[in-house]
Amino acid sequence: MAKTIGRRLIVPLAVLVLVLSFGGIASAQSNDPPNSELAEAINVMWMLIAGFLVFFMQAGFALVEAGFTRAKNVAHTMMMNLMVFCVGAIGYWLVGFALQYGAINFTYPAVGALSEWAHSPVSLGDWQGLLATPLLRFGQFGILGGSGFLLDGVGAVSGILAFFFFQLVFMDTAATIPTGSTAERLKFTGFILMGLWVSMFIYPLIGNWVWGGGWLQNLGRSLGLGNGAVDFAGSGVVHMVGGAVALAGAIVIGPRIGRFNKDGSANAMPGHNIPLGVLGTIILFFGWFGFNPGSSLSFVGAGRDLAVTAAVNTLLAGAAGGISAMTYMWMVGPTKKPDPGLSVNGVLAGLVAITASCAFVTQTSSVVIGLVAGVLVCLATFGLERARVDDPVGAVPVHLINGLWGVLAVGIFATGNPDTAGWNGVATPVTGLLYGDTGQFLAQVFEAFAVLVTVLGLSWVFFKIVNALKQLRSAPQDELLGLDIPEMGTPGYTNADVVMPGGRLSQQMPATSSNMRTK
Amino acid sequence: MAKTIGRRLIVPLAVLVLVLSFGGIASAQSNDPPNSELAEAINVMWMLIAGFLVFFMQAGFALVEAGFTRAKNVAHTMMMNLMVFCVGAIGYWLVGFALQYGAINFTYPAVGALSEWAHSPVSLGDWQGLLATPLLRFGQFGILGGSGFLLDGVGAVSGILAFFFFQLVFMDTAATIPTGSTAERLKFTGFILMGLWVSMFIYPLIGNWVWGGGWLQNLGRSLGLGNGAVDFAGSGVVHMVGGAVALAGAIVIGPRIGRFNKDGSANAMPGHNIPLGVLGTIILFFGWFGFNPGSSLSFVGAGRDLAVTAAVNTLLAGAAGGISAMTYMWMVGPTKKPDPGLSVNGVLAGLVAITASCAFVTQTSSVVIGLVAGVLVCLATFGLERARVDDPVGAVPVHLINGLWGVLAVGIFATGNPDTAGWNGVATPVTGLLYGDTGQFLAQVFEAFAVLVTVLGLSWVFFKIVNALKQLRSAPQDELLGLDIPEMGTPGYTNADVVMPGGRLSQQMPATSSNMRTK
Amino acid sequence: MAKTIGRRLIVPLAVLVLVLSFGGIASAQSNDPPNSELAEAINVMWMLIAGFLVFFMQAGFALVEAGFTRAKNVAHTMMMNLMVFCVGAIGYWLVGFALQYGAINFTYPAVGALSEWAHSPVSLGDWQGLLATPLLRFGQFGILGGSGFLLDGVGAVSGILAFFFFQLVFMDTAATIPTGSTAERLKFTGFILMGLWVSMFIYPLIGNWVWGGGWLQNLGRSLGLGNGAVDFAGSGVVHMVGGAVALAGAIVIGPRIGRFNKDGSANAMPGHNIPLGVLGTIILFFGWFGFNPGSSLSFVGAGRDLAVTAAVNTLLAGAAGGISAMTYMWMVGPTKKPDPGLSVNGVLAGLVAITASCAFVTQTSSVVIGLVAGVLVCLATFGLERARVDDPVGAVPVHLINGLWGVLAVGIFATGNPDTAGWNGVATPVTGLLYGDTGQFLAQVFEAFAVLVTVLGLSWVFFKIVNALKQLRSAPQDELLGLDIPEMGTPGYTNADVVMPGGRLSQQMPATSSNMRTK
Repeated sequence: MAKTIGRRLIVPLAVLVLVLSFGGIASAQSNDPPNSELAEAINVMWMLIAGFLVFFMQAGFALVEAGFTRAKNVAHTMMMNLMVFCVGAIGYWLVGFALQYGAINFTYPAVGALSEWAHSPVSLGDWQGLLATPLLRFGQFGILGGSGFLLDGVGAVSGILAFFFFQLVFMDTAATIPTGSTAERLKFTGFILMGLWVSMFIYPLIGNWVWGGGWLQNLGRSLGLGNGAVDFAGSGVVHMVGGAVALAGAIVIGPRIGRFNKDGSANAMPGHNIPLGVLGTIILFFGWFGFNPGSSLSFVGAGRDLAVTAAVNTLLAGAAGGISAMTYMWMVGPTKKPDPGLSVNGVLAGLVAITASCAFVTQTSSVVIGLVAGVLVCLATFGLERARVDDPVGAVPVHLINGLWGVLAVGIFATGNPDTAGWNGVATPVTGLLYGDTGQFLAQVFEAFAVLVTVLGLSWVFFKIVNALKQLRSAPQDELLGLDIPEMGTPGYTNADVVMPGGRLSQQMPATSSNMRTK
Repeated sequence: MAKTIGRRLIVPLAVLVLVLSFGGIASAQSNDPPNSELAEAINVMWMLIAGFLVFFMQAGFALVEAGFTRAKNVAHTMMMNLMVFCVGAIGYWLVGFALQYGAINFTYPAVGALSEWAHSPVSLGDWQGLLATPLLRFGQFGILGGSGFLLDGVGAVSGILAFFFFQLVFMDTAATIPTGSTAERLKFTGFILMGLWVSMFIYPLIGNWVWGGGWLQNLGRSLGLGNGAVDFAGSGVVHMVGGAVALAGAIVIGPRIGRFNKDGSANAMPGHNIPLGVLGTIILFFGWFGFNPGSSLSFVGAGRDLAVTAAVNTLLAGAAGGISAMTYMWMVGPTKKPDPGLSVNGVLAGLVAITASCAFVTQTSSVVIGLVAGVLVCLATFGLERARVDDPVGAVPVHLINGLWGVLAVGIFATGNPDTAGWNGVATPVTGLLYGDTGQFLAQVFEAFAVLVTVLGLSWVFFKIVNALKQLRSAPQDELLGLDIPEMGTPGYTNADVVMPGGRLSQQMPATSSNMRTK
Repeated sequence: MAKTIGRRLIVPLAVLVLVLSFGGIASAQSNDPPNSELAEAINVMWMLIAGFLVFFMQAGFALVEAGFTRAKNVAHTMMMNLMVFCVGAIGYWLVGFALQYGAINFTYPAVGALSEWAHSPVSLGDWQGLLATPLLRFGQFGILGGSGFLLDGVGAVSGILAFFFFQLVFMDTAATIPTGSTAERLKFTGFILMGLWVSMFIYPLIGNWVWGGGWLQNLGRSLGLGNGAVDFAGSGVVHMVGGAVALAGAIVIGPRIGRFNKDGSANAMPGHNIPLGVLGTIILFFGWFGFNPGSSLSFVGAGRDLAVTAAVNTLLAGAAGGISAMTYMWMVGPTKKPDPGLSVNGVLAGLVAITASCAFVTQTSSVVIGLVAGVLVCLATFGLERARVDDPVGAVPVHLINGLWGVLAVGIFATGNPDTAGWNGVATPVTGLLYGDTGQFLAQVFEAFAVLVTVLGLSWVFFKIVNALKQLRSAPQDELLGLDIPEMGTPGYTNADVVMPGGRLSQQMPATSSNMRTK
C-alpha cells in the first residue's frame, strides 16, 4: 500500500518536476535570446549610438571654427575639419588603437574581473588573450601598448569593434581641436602631419596612461592615490590633450599677420559668420550627450545610472557655463554686452569642465563647475591675448584650461556614489576632497600635470620639426589673400555668378574670382 | 522495501528538484541582469536618446528664425536661441520642475498604480514619497506642485533624473517659440526675462495641469469627461503655450518699424537666408522624432507600439502639411508659387498638429490632420497680418493655431486603441468623436480653451510689466541699424577682411565694420 | 511507517517543487516582460533610431547640393530637397510600399522561416497573411507586389509600421539623388513628377527585386547563384537607382547654359558655398551610421554583430574614400590641390561603395573598397565632363558609379561570416570571389546590370515624356536670372535690408530685390 502510494505519487511528481523545471528554463531560454545576450545588445547599442553622436561633433567643431574665423579661409578651415576625421581614422586604425589598448597591465577591461553584472561594460571577448602581449612598462608603470595594429586578430570580435568605434571618435575629437588654434595660417601639409601626430601617437599615449591600463590609471595600486586618475569622459584625455597640442601649435606657428602690433597691443579679427558658430555650438552640445553619457560604456545596471547622471549634469554645466561667461562679458567685459563669441565658448567651457566628473557629482556641483568654467574661459582668453599667443577660436581657453579644471573637479566634487565602483576598473567609489578623499585629488593633480607637461613638451618638439621642414606655416602672401585659393584651389564663397573657362579638368581659379576677396 | 524505494527515489528526486529549479532561476538570474532591469534599461535609454533629439531641435528653431529674419539681426536671433536653453535649463532646474511635478494628486506617474508591466513608464522610484508634499489644489482640481526645487532629494534617483532631462528639453521647446514672434526688436534683457517667465512659471503651470496630475488631466475623474485632457507630446502643453506667449509678446511689443503702413497695409520683410531656414526645418523634423515617439515614456510593451505609431504618423503629417501649404500657395496664394516660407511652415504646422494625437490615430487620419494644418497655417498667417500683428517667422500660426487644432484632433480622431490605456495615467482607451466618445472631445476643448486664455492673459500682463520697466523693446535707432551691434556688440556677418585695433580686451565694433550694414 | 515517511516527505516535496518551479518561472515572467518582448523592443528601437538618422540625411543632401551650386538657385535647390521628402513620403505610403513589399514569393521576411532567434528581424506579425495576395511574377521570377496600399490592413501592426518607416526613409534617399544632377535648371513641376516617379514606381520596383522577394533576391534558388543578389544597405537598390535616374535626367534635360562651349570644352561653374557643402557631407556621414548599421534590421544576436561590423567598416571606407580622392586631386588633378569638391565626393563615394558589403567584409577590405571609390569618383567626374553630361554636384559619379562598384564588391570581398546567414532571407554565409564563391559574384553582376539597364531605360522614357509635356526644363531667361525668383517667388538670400510694399498678401518680389542677383 505504502509502496503503491509512494509510487503513485512519486512518478507523476517526477514528471511534474521535470515539466515545471524545464518549463522554468524554457520560458527564459527556448528560442528566445538569453538575458546575457539582451544585456550585451543594450550595452553595445548604447555605445554605438553614443559613438554616432560623438562623430557628429565633427560638424560642430567645423562650424565653430569656420564661423569665428574669416571668410577668406573658410574652405581651408572646413576642409581641415572634414579631413582630420578621415586622416585620423585611418591613422588610429593603423597604429593608434594598438598603442592605446594593445596591452593591459591589469584586468581592465576584461569582463571577467568585474564581479557584478551590473558593472559589466560591453563584452570584449577574450580581450587579454587577443591583444595583450607587448607592453612598454616599468614595473607597475605602464607606458604604451603595442598589439592589434590594423585590428589584427580582433576585427571579428564585435565587442572590440564597437569599443574601437567609440574610442576612434573620441580620438578624433582631440585631433580636431588644434585646427582651431592654428587656423588661418596652417599649411595643409602641416595639418595632415598634425592629424597623424594626434591620432597615431600623442592621443594614444595619454589614452593608454589614463584609460588603457597605464600608469596614471594605476596610481591607486602603485602609490595608493584614490582610484588612480579617474577621467570619466576625458576632460584630460581628450580636451587637455587637444588643448595642449593646440597651445604648442599656436606658439610655434606664431600669430596671424596683423593680430598684434609692435607695441604688444592686440587687434581684433572678428569671425565672419556668427550663425555658423552658434549652430556649431548647439551641434557640439548635442554630440556631447553621446560623449559624456556614452562613457558609461554600458547601460544595464550601474551603467544606466552613470549615463543618466552624466546626461543631466552635462546639460546643467553647459548651460551654467554659457550663463556665467555671458554675464561676465555683460558686466565686466570690454564691450559690456552679452558677447556671442565668449558666450559660445562659455557653453563649451562648461561642457569640457564637466566631462571628467559628469557621472560622479551632484547637480548642484555641476552648476558650480559650469559657472566657474564660464569665468575661466573669459579670463584665459584675455590672458592668452596678453601673452601674445594667437588662438583664433579660443581652443586653449576652452579645452586646455577647462580640461584641467575638469580633471581637478573630479578630485573635489565626486560624491563617492557606490555606482561608480566597477566602472572602467575603478575599485572603490570615486570620492573627492569635499567628501573626504585627499588621495583621489592628488591622483587628479598627477593626471593634469602629466598630461600638460607631456603633451605640451612633445608637441612643441613635433611642431618645431614640422616647421623646420617648412610644412607648418603658409606663405605670408597666401595668408593675406586667404588660404582658400592658394591652399585649396577654390574660394569658399562664390556669390557672384561666375562662369570660368576650363571645367574641372583645368580649373584655375583666378584670385579675383570671388567678390569676397576684395580686402 | 517500500521505505527503501521511497527513500531511494525521494532523495535523488529532491536533489533533482533543487538542481533543476535553482537551475531555472539561475539561468534567468545568476550574474545576468533580471528582466526588470533590462526593461528599465530599454525604457530609460529610449527616453534619454529621445531627449537628445528634442534638445537638438534648438538648432532647428535657431536656424528657422535666423533664416526668416534679416541679416542685420542674425547674431541677436541666434544668441537668443542658444541662451534660451541655458537660461531656461537653470530656471527649470531651480523652480520649474518642482512646480510642474513636485506633487501629484493622483497616482500618476507612480509605477505601482499601473497594473501591467507593458505600460510601466520609466521607473521613478518612490516618487510620491520623494516629491509629493505641498500641492496647491481646490478639491480634485490641482493647480501647482511645489517640491523638488534644485532636484532636492531626488537627484540620486536616475529614473527621476531621466524624466527631468526629458521634461526640461520639452520646456525649452516652448520657451524658444516666442523668440520668433518678437524677433528683430526684443531687447536682450527682455529676452532673458521671457526665458525665465516660460521656464520658471507659465510652462510648469500648464504642464502641471495636463501632465503633472493637475485639474485638466483629472477631468475624467472630476467631471467624467473621457480620460481628461490627453495630450501625447504636447500640442497644447508645449506648442500652444509657446504660441500663446508668442502672441502676447507680439501684441505688446508691437510691429517692427516699417512693417505696416499708416493705412493699415502691410510690407514684406523677407528673411535673409532661405537655406538656413530650410535646414532648420529638416533639423526640427528630425528632432520631432524624439519629441513625439519619445513621449511614449517607455519602449517595452505598449510603449513600443505607441512610439512606432507616433513615428510613422509624425512623418506622414509633417509631409502632408508641407504639401498642402505648398499647394495652397501655388494655387491660391498671392505669388502663385510654391512659396518656401509657407511650405516650411506647413511642414512645421503638420508636425505641431499631430503632436497631441500621434500615438492615437490611424495613418490616414494623420494625413488628414496634416493637410488641414497646412491650409490653417496659410490662413492664419494672412489673418494675423490683416490684424496688424507682426510675427516675423509665423510662430503664432504654426504653434498656437495648429497646437489648438492638434489638441482638438485627439478628441476627433483617436481610435480607442487599447494600447493607449495605461499611458501616463490614462484609464481607458483614448477615443475621439469619430469613434464614439463625446466626453473626450469636451476634455480637449477644455484644455485648448484653458491653455489659450490662461497663457495669453498672464503673458500679456507679464509683457506689460517688462515693457513698463523699459526692458521689452530696443531703441528705434538700434532696430533700424540692426540689433547685432548695439545689443550684442558684434556684427553677425563680417565678410570683408576686417582688422580692428584693440583686441578682445577693448573691442569696439564700429557701426560700419560690416559690409552687410549698408542699408 | 514507510507510508508515513513517504507522505511526510512527498507532500512538502511537492510543495517545494511547485514553489521552486513556479518561482523559477515567476522570476523570469511574473509582471516582468518576457525575453521575446525585450528582444523585440531592442530590435524595433534600433530600427527606429537608425531610421531617424537616415531621415536626417535629407539635410545633408540639401546642403551638399546647395553648397556646390550657385547662389541664384539656392532657394530652389533647398526646396527640392525638403519637398522631395514630403512628396515621396505620401507617394510611398499611397503606392510604393505596396508595390515593393505587398507580396512575397518566398518566406522573407516572415519570422517563422528563420530558425534561430539570433537572426530574427523585427517581428512583422503574420506578414504574409496580411499583405500577400496579388504578385506579378513569372514562375520563380517575382516582379512586383501589389497589396497594402495606404498601409491598408497593416497599419495597426507596429512591427510593420517600423519596417515601413525604415523603408520609407531609404526610398527618400534614392529620390533626392537626382535633384543634384538636374539642379539649377529643373522646373518645379518636373521636380514634383520626378519625386512621384521614384517614390511610387521605380524605387519600389527595384526594391522588390532585391529586397522584397523579387527575382534578383531569388537568383540563388532559381539559378543557383550564391544567395541571389545580396545588397546589405542598398549600394544598388538605393544609390544605383538614384544615380541612374540622375543620369537619365541629366542627359534628357541637357547641360546648364554656358556649361559647355561649342568646341566641346567645358567651363567650371563653382558652387557658391563650400561650408554648406562640407557641413552637408558630415551630416550625410552621420546619417549613414543609421543607413548601413541599421540595415541589420535587428540588434539582438547576429544582428548586433552585423550592425557593429557595418558601423566600423562604414567609418573606415568613408575616411579612405576621402583620403584617396583628396590625394588623387593633390597629386594628379588639374589644380594640384586637395580639392574640396572632390574630397567631399570622395568621402561620399567611399560611403556609397561600402553600403552593399559593409556587414560582410573585413576592415582591411573596407579600406581598399574606399580607396578605390575615391579614385573612381574622380575619374568618373572627368569622364562625365568629357561626355558633355552636366551633373552639377557629381550625383552620377558618387551614386551610380560607386553604387555599381559597391554591388560588385560584395561578390569580391564578402568573407563568408556565418553571422550573415539568416539576414534578410540569406540562406548560407555570403561569400565573395576572394573567399571562393563565384556564384555570388555572378548574382551581384546580375543585380548591377539589371538595375542599371532597367532604371536608366525606364527613367529616360519618363523624362522624355515630362519634357514633351514642357514640364522638365525652366525657361532660359529664368535659368540665367536664377530659378529662385521665377520658380519659387523669393530670392534665396536677401542681404540688403529690403522692405517691400504689399506684405505677404500681395508679395511680388522684384527681380532686383536682392543684391545677389547682379550678374
